[in-house]
Formats: sequence, structure tokens, C-alpha cells
Amino acid sequence: MKPMLQVALDNQDVESALKVAKEIRKYIDVIEVGTILISSEGKNAIKKISDEFKDKIIVADGKVSDAGKIFGHMFYKQGATFVTAICAAETSTMKVLLDTAKEYGNDKSVQVELTTNFTWEQAKEWRKVGIDQAVWHRARDAQAAGVSWGKKDLEAIKKLCDLGFKVTITGGVELEDIKLFKDYPIYIFIAGRSIRDAKNPELAAKAFQDEIAKYWA
Amino acid sequence: MKPMLQVALDNQDVESALKVAKEIRKYIDVIEVGTILISSEGKNAIKKISDEFKDKIIVADGKVSDAGKIFGHMFYKQGATFVTAICAAETSTMKVLLDTAKEYGNDKSVQVELTTNFTWEQAKEWRKVGIDQAVWHRARDAQAAGVSWGKKDLEAIKKLCDLGFKVTITGGVELEDIKLFKDYPIYIFIAGRSIRDAKNPELAAKAFQDEIAKYWA
Repeated sequence: MKPMLQVALDNQDVESALKVAKEIRKYIDVIEVGTILISSEGKNAIKKISDEFKDKIIVADGKVSDAGKIFGHMFYKQGATFVTAICAAETSTMKVLLDTAKEYGNDKSVQVELTTNFTWEQAKEWRKVGIDQAVWHRARDAQAAGVSWGKKDLEAIKKLCDLGFKVTITGGVELEDIKLFKDYPIYIFIAGRSIRDAKNPELAAKAFQDEIAKYWA
Repeated sequence: MKPMLQVALDNQDVESALKVAKEIRKYIDVIEVGTILISSEGKNAIKKISDEFKDKIIVADGKVSDAGKIFGHMFYKQGATFVTAICAAETSTMKVLLDTAKEYGNDKSVQVELTTNFTWEQAKEWRKVGIDQAVWHRARDAQAAGVSWGKKDLEAIKKLCDLGFKVTITGGVELEDIKLFKDYPIYIFIAGRSIRDAKNPELAAKAFQDEIAKYWA
């Protein structure tokens, strides 16, 4: 299956987020209300964006670490399809968040956002409670420190796929990075600044879709 | 030194948060704008609360996991004294967040919010980049599953103190729990629901201060 393309709206205000999302509407499968945007504007940003894009998958990147029920109701009620939990969360929190998701519909789900600080024992526990999505993440601050995609990323992604996770790739993904992942059943690629900050965001999004189509039938 | 008392404002709206905070003003040292409140209302909740309580330490419980500079500017600019980072964050993110804190003043700092999913190697790395506060946390969802304070908590707290962290205790702290920690130089106790949901929050906060005064001179 062809990976989906997700735009991360890590804007600080919802108006500029909506503006760019509308420009690229045609080429985007998944719209992420970024942690930065949620922290800046609150849950209402999720509602405004999901109201505008009813035909898209909406990710609320809340990075839930506790109180899964409260955050679940808060985010799914605004229209989120997927809500992220941070890998540091206890497995019980992830389970509560997933249970809450299912109260809003079978299409609702949870993604675990990974940093380098998780263990494979945790990953197996997450699967046991029904979590089936993971977000492989190259940290923004690591990128700034010059860390690029490598063998370590690909090995981890393979391991996640083998465990049964649908894997999202994020962290400064550029057009030329897409082919690095061609041997894996990637579920979603996230592009943030490489679309939002492009001169022509629509063309940038189209280029990502074209590039993805080259490697996945 | 006597531990400080922090109220966690995990309300979903800033008006109810301000209401209870004003009621307990006299007995509270530190006011936390909870993750729930930030996610619900956005960064403006931090501004409204810090504007009202200029003489208090304000904690923005943003649980930063990446993009330390963006979140640092976002939260310290609204008046936060301390901003939390989640233990899953890369150490580079914590360093960037701490550097950003210091741009706003020497009293500004970073607290690392711990779940059970961190390692002592990470803790030592945090100290190396200058992080000197940690929040020992019993998860809300773990509490609901019946996990109570125990020897494991006390051993970890001692280890954190020995590493040079000023330690905050949180996670459903009740009045009768305070004495469990009497042998340790606790920096801050956080009470949330046990104050906010009390019939008389002011008396509940006073009772915490009296209890703390019993065990720390």
C-alpha cells in the first residue's frame, strides 16, 4: 500500500495553519495539529482544523504522557482521528487513551511517538494492549545537531514493522529522504517545514506524492 | 529547608483555575499551569495565571519533548518560572530549553518530569547539561490501577537527591503521604485534586503547609 502524506502544522497560530493546509488540500492525506499549535492555541485549534477538513485523517499531536481518559475525550471530541502518546507514558495510560478513542469510533486510534529513549520491552507491551501505530522520530534538536537518517533508523523501522506496528516517519523529512525507506511498508510520511516553508507549498506537497508513488505501487 | 507547596491547576478552563488559585493564595508557594490546562486553553492560560500571581513561582507543565527553543520562548515569555520537559526528550532538547530559560532570567529553570520509563544513565546526562530539577511522578493512570507510594519511590528519590537534583513529588499526593518523605530534602510537594476538589481548598492547602512544617524545620 502506498504510504500516506501528512503535513505537520507546527504553526503557532491556527490562521496560518489553516491557510497553508487549504493550499495543499489536494495533495495531503493526513493533517497534523502539531504539539506546538496545541500548546499555543489550545484544543480549539483541533476543532477548527478538523471542521475544515472533514474528509481527512486528523492527528492531534498531544504527546499524551498521563491522564489518558481526560486527554482522549479532550482531543477526540474536537475531531481528532489519531492522538499521539509519548513513549515515556505508562502502558496503562496508552490503553486508557486507546479505550477512549474507541468510544468515538472504530477509525479512531492512538500513535506512540518515539524518541530514542524507549525500550523494545515497552514496544512489545504496547502491542499487547492493542496499540498498532508508532511514529519514528528524528528529534528537531538532534537534526539541528547534525544527526541524519541512517542504518539505525532503518533497522528500528524494520523491527517496528515486524512487531506489527504501522509506522509513521517524521523529523525533518526532505523529498530526497523518501527513497531511503523504499523497502519498508511505511504507513505515513510526515513533512512539516519542507512543505510549510516552501515557496509553493502545493507544489512541494505534490512533489512528495510523486516521489512516494515512484517507490510504492 | 522546608519543602514548598505547589498546586497543580489541571482544570480545563482558566477561569475555574484562577478561582481556586485565588482562594488558596495565602498558602501556596508554586502555581502549576497543568498540561491539561495548557492543552485545553493554550499558552494564554500561562499568561493569565502568571499575571495574577506575580509573587509566586509559576510552573508551565508543558512536558516538552522536542523543539526546546520554540517551547522555551513560548512558555517563559508568558511568565513561566519553571518549564517541564518529559524524560523521553533527548538531552539536547533539555539543554536547549535550559539555555532558552536563562535568556529570560537566572531564576528561570527546567524540571524533568519522570515516568517509570527513564534510565539512570539519562539522569546523569541531564545533570551534565545543567538540569538540576526532577519531578518524581506517580502516574494518574497507575494510581487508578491501585499503585501506591512505596519503597521503590523512596529509593529513587534518594538517588535523585544524591545526583544533585532538587526533587518535586507529585501524583495524587494526599495529606497523609507527606510524612513518608520526611527523611529527604524534598524541594516541592504538588497537590492537585486533594486541594482543588476539597470542600474548602484554602483549609486543605493550609493543612498541607502545617503537615510539611511538622517534619521539616
